[in-house]
Amino acid sequence: MKEKRIERVLEKLGAMGLEQMVVADAISILYLTDIWVDAGERLVALYLNRNRKHCLFVNHMFTLPAEPGVEVVRFSDTDPYLELLGARIDREKVLGVDKVMPARFLLPLMEQGCAAGFVNSSLCVDETRAIKDEEEKEAMKRVSAINDQAMARFKELLKEGVTERQVAGQMKEIYQSLGADDLSFPPSVCFGANGAVGHYRCGDVALKPGDCVLMDVGCIKDHYCADMTRTFFFKKMEKEEHQRVYELVLAANRAAEAMVRPGVRFKDIDRAARNIIEEAGYGSCFTHRLGHFIGMEVHDYGDVSAANEEYTQAGQIFSIEPGIYLEGEMGVRIEDLVLVTEDGCEILNSYSKELEVLQ
Amino acid sequence: MKEKRIERVLEKLGAMGLEQMVVADAISILYLTDIWVDAGERLVALYLNRNRKHCLFVNHMFTLPAEPGVEVVRFSDTDPYLELLGARIDREKVLGVDKVMPARFLLPLMEQGCAAGFVNSSLCVDETRAIKDEEEKEAMKRVSAINDQAMARFKELLKEGVTERQVAGQMKEIYQSLGADDLSFPPSVCFGANGAVGHYRCGDVALKPGDCVLMDVGCIKDHYCADMTRTFFFKKMEKEEHQRVYELVLAANRAAEAMVRPGVRFKDIDRAARNIIEEAGYGSCFTHRLGHFIGMEVHDYGDVSAANEEYTQAGQIFSIEPGIYLEGEMGVRIEDLVLVTEDGCEILNSYSKELEVLQ
Repeated sequence: MKEKRIERVLEKLGAMGLEQMVVADAISILYLTDIWVDAGERLVALYLNRNRKHCLFVNHMFTLPAEPGVEVVRFSDTDPYLELLGARIDREKVLGVDKVMPARFLLPLMEQGCAAGFVNSSLCVDETRAIKDEEEKEAMKRVSAINDQAMARFKELLKEGVTERQVAGQMKEIYQSLGADDLSFPPSVCFGANGAVGHYRCGDVALKPGDCVLMDVGCIKDHYCADMTRTFFFKKMEKEEHQRVYELVLAANRAAEAMVRPGVRFKDIDRAARNIIEEAGYGSCFTHRLGHFIGMEVHDYGDVSAANEEYTQAGQIFSIEPGIYLEGEMGVRIEDLVLVTEDGCEILNSYSKELEVLQ
Repeated sequence: MKEKRIERVLEKLGAMGLEQMVVADAISILYLTDIWVDAGERLVALYLNRNRKHCLFVNHMFTLPAEPGVEVVRFSDTDPYLELLGARIDREKVLGVDKVMPARFLLPLMEQGCAAGFVNSSLCVDETRAIKDEEEKEAMKRVSAINDQAMARFKELLKEGVTERQVAGQMKEIYQSLGADDLSFPPSVCFGANGAVGHYRCGDVALKPGDCVLMDVGCIKDHYCADMTRTFFFKKMEKEEHQRVYELVLAANRAAEAMVRPGVRFKDIDRAARNIIEEAGYGSCFTHRLGHFIGMEVHDYGDVSAANEEYTQAGQIFSIEPGIYLEGEMGVRIEDLVLVTEDGCEILNSYSKELEVLQ
C-alpha cells in the first residue's frame, strides 16, 4: 500500500463527510496499492474506510504479489462477488464511489441496500493523483526525456512519399528501443490539411514538399505517460501565413508556460495563450482547451481551460498545447508538459520548438 | 441507423417491461447507428424509446456524418449536458441503462430524478449484438481470414534467440500489411514456462530449443475482432508428456467444436472439452472457461462456461479455447472462433492445428 497516498484520500473523504469509498478504477488502485490488476470486464475494487480496515477484491484468476500489503478477498466468476463486497460496506453510512464505477456494479450494490446512500467521491482520489509526489515526478521526467529523444528519431522518418501510417507504425518500436514500455496513446501523424482535423490519427496520405507535419505523440514507462506535440514544415513553406501561424502558436505556448507557478488560475493561463491567438485574428481557429492533466493516464482529471476557476498547486503536471488550425490547409500545435514547482515550473520537454523547415 | 438492430433492442426492452433506455457504450452506439464517436471521458449517449423518438447526444468536438439518420443533440464541455439528456427522459417511466454507464453520468441522472427508476437493461443490447447478422458474419470471416494468414507470418519470426517482445512488436505491422486496421488486443507471445502464466503478454525472454511457444493473437478490421491461439514446439520437444498434453488439448478443442449447432447448452460444450482433459488427469491445469463471445469487442457479452445454462442460437460467434498449463514448464492452448449456423457450425479459423515442431 502507498500509505501516504491513502492518507491523503482518507483526509479528503473526511472533508466530504464520508467514512468509506469503493475505488473501481484499476489505475487508481495501482496508484494506491502498487498492485496492477488488468481485470477487463471483471470486478476489481479497493474498499477504503477511515477506520483503516481497507480491503482489495480481486478475482482468483489474477496474480497478486506474495505480500499485497492489504487484506485481500478473492473470488471466482461464479461467486456472488458483489454481495461479498456489499457485506463489507457499512450500511449505516453513505458510500463514495469513483467516477468510472460501471452500472453493472453500482446498480446491484444499490439494490442490496449496502449503504445509506451513494455519491460520486472520485475527486478524493483524482485530486490526490493530481499532486505528484517525488517518485511520480521522477517517473514523469524519465518518460518525457524518452519522448524528447523519440521526437528526434520520428523527424528522421519524414521523407518524401512516406505515408502518415508508415511513420506512425514505426513509433512503438522506436519508443521501446529507447526504453519505453508502450505508446501512451495512438500517435497522431498529420500531413497538410489533416493537421486541422480534430482527433485525426493517421491515414494513407503521402508526404509532399510544402506540407506542414503535426506529430502528437507519447509513450508510457513504469505506468507514467508522456505527451508532446511538435509541428514541422517539409522542404518549404507553402505560404507566408504559415510562418505567421507557427510564430503565434509558439508565442502562445511560451506566454502560457511563463505564467506557471503555484497560485495562478487555470483559466488565466488558458486566457494568456488565447489572447495572443485571438488578437491576431485566429481565435476561431484555436478550437480546444489549452491543456490537460497527465500522469498515470494521458488524460488525468483536471484541465487548463476557461472553465477551470481553480488555482495551480505545486506538484501538478499538465500540458500546455495551443494550436491554430486552418481547415483544408494545415494545423500547428506545440505541446509541452509542465510541472508546477514551489517557485515556478519545470518544462518536462526540451525538444526544440523553433520553426524548422526539414530538408 | 441500423433499423433492424434497433427494432430487436426495442422488442427486448418491451419484454423487460421497459419503454426507454440510454446506451452509453460507444461500441453499442456504433452497432446501432453506424456512427463511431470515440469520446473518451466525455458523454456520448443514445436515448432509445419504444415510441421511436430516439436521440443521440454528442459533444460538438466530434465529427458526425452529414446525415446521421437520427435526431442529434450537440453540446459543449461547459453545457449542462446531463440535464439536456435528463430532460429528454420520460420521468414517469423506469429507465434502462447499459452496463458500462459510469457513475459520473448515472449518479447525476439519478439525482435529477429524471426517471421513475433505474435498471441495468444492457442485455437488450448485448443479446442483440450476440446474434450476428449477415453483414457481421462476413466481417468476422474477413478478419479471421487475416488472422489465419498472419499466424503463418508470425511463425516465421520464431528464430533462436528472438525475444517474446521482439516477436510481439512486429505483429501490428504484419497485420496491417495484410489489410487489418489494428490489433484487437495486445498479443500474447509466451515462450516456455510463460505459457502457463495467466494473462501473460510478452517479456524479454529469448527463444531456445525445446521451448513450447504459445501465441494468442488477433486483429481488427472494419470494427470486428479476430482472436486465435496456436501453440508450437521449437526445434524439439523437451518431454514426451508435452506431446500428450498437446494432443489432449487438440482433442478437447475438436470435441467441443464438433458439438456446436443450435440448441446445445453452453455448459455442455464446456463440459465436453473439460471431460477429456479431466479424464487424463489434467483437470486442475485447465484453469479457465472454454470460450467467450466475440464481435465488435474481443470479449463480447456471453461465454462458454460451466455457469452458462443457456442454449446456443444460430448467428452466435464465440471462441473454443481449451488449455493445459504446467506451471513453471509450459502451456498449450488451441483457440478457434466458431459461428453457429442453422444446422451446425462454421469454424472461422483454418490455420492448421496439427502438432508442429518448428525447425
